[in-house]
Amino acid sequence: MDTYRIIITKRDTRAFLDRPVPVETRRRILQAGRMAGSSKNSQPCRFVVLEDPRVREEFAACGDFAAWLPQAPFVVAIAVVGGTRGEFDAGRAAQNMMITAWAEKVASCPVSLHRQECAVEVLRLPPDARVPIAIGFGYRAKPAKHAPEAARLGWDEYVRINRWQP
Amino acid sequence: MDTYRIIITKRDTRAFLDRPVPVETRRRILQAGRMAGSSKNSQPCRFVVLEDPRVREEFAACGDFAAWLPQAPFVVAIAVVGGTRGEFDAGRAAQNMMITAWAEKVASCPVSLHRQECAVEVLRLPPDARVPIAIGFGYRAKPAKHAPEAARLGWDEYVRINRWQP
Repeated sequence: MDTYRIIITKRDTRAFLDRPVPVETRRRILQAGRMAGSSKNSQPCRFVVLEDPRVREEFAACGDFAAWLPQAPFVVAIAVVGGTRGEFDAGRAAQNMMITAWAEKVASCPVSLHRQECAVEVLRLPPDARVPIAIGFGYRAKPAKHAPEAARLGWDEYVRINRWQP
Repeated sequence: MDTYRIIITKRDTRAFLDRPVPVETRRRILQAGRMAGSSKNSQPCRFVVLEDPRVREEFAACGDFAAWLPQAPFVVAIAVVGGTRGEFDAGRAAQNMMITAWAEKVASCPVSLHRQECAVEVLRLPPDARVPIAIGFGYRAKPAKHAPEAARLGWDEYVRINRWQP
């Protein structure tokens, strides 16, 4: 499958098989995040791999919809420690990771941490850090639906030429 | 080249040949952005393709480092019109677009718009919209350096296990 097909068929999925993500795949996922560009190469992102079950539980309690996270075979929290476009650059790094994973048939889903102080404390980050996202990775529990497209607004709602309004 | 190699060899580049990006490649770039996942599928991103030279100049004047943008063969502004993770989701869409382009040997660079009111006005967006980024795409003017890795902080500075500090 070529890169474009991999990109457009990626679905955010959070129900995973109880099957580990291979070590080499994990390494490529993290390296893809590290290689993502950032504003003036400020490299604001840091990655914390959550392996310890207790840390996973403490961390998941920092988000309103993160209860599924401790069961994911591979969990990465993305911290931002500076930069002027931190959340945007975190999105770039996250997408690099998730597309790299999906190219190896590893699904993923990002999740927000609504209580930022909690997330920073659990991960023992510098106090001015933030954690815009964590990502759970694994092999999907249910077979992929073969819908030709994800459910999205129409092309004309997404794309305009020159100005949004005439 | 497989998807992982495409992802880790992507460099942000803003010096382009005067050679158009094919229509089909442009369509795939935009579709890759549209297919990017977002928080609760809120789809907060919109794409404005800048073709008119006057609009390009007006828009570029909204950023401190965007003077190169009007010369890019293909220019897309990403607007955010809602959602709870707009900048992060814009980063996901932008990276989908830039990786899709790079898979077809089309380079790219994102650029910030420091004067948001200006960007919103030039693009005639709803007043509460924001424009976290624009991207210029094109064939690179200089051959790629074949450094094995982009200049990045060391792996141990990027990645930790369980907690950032022991």
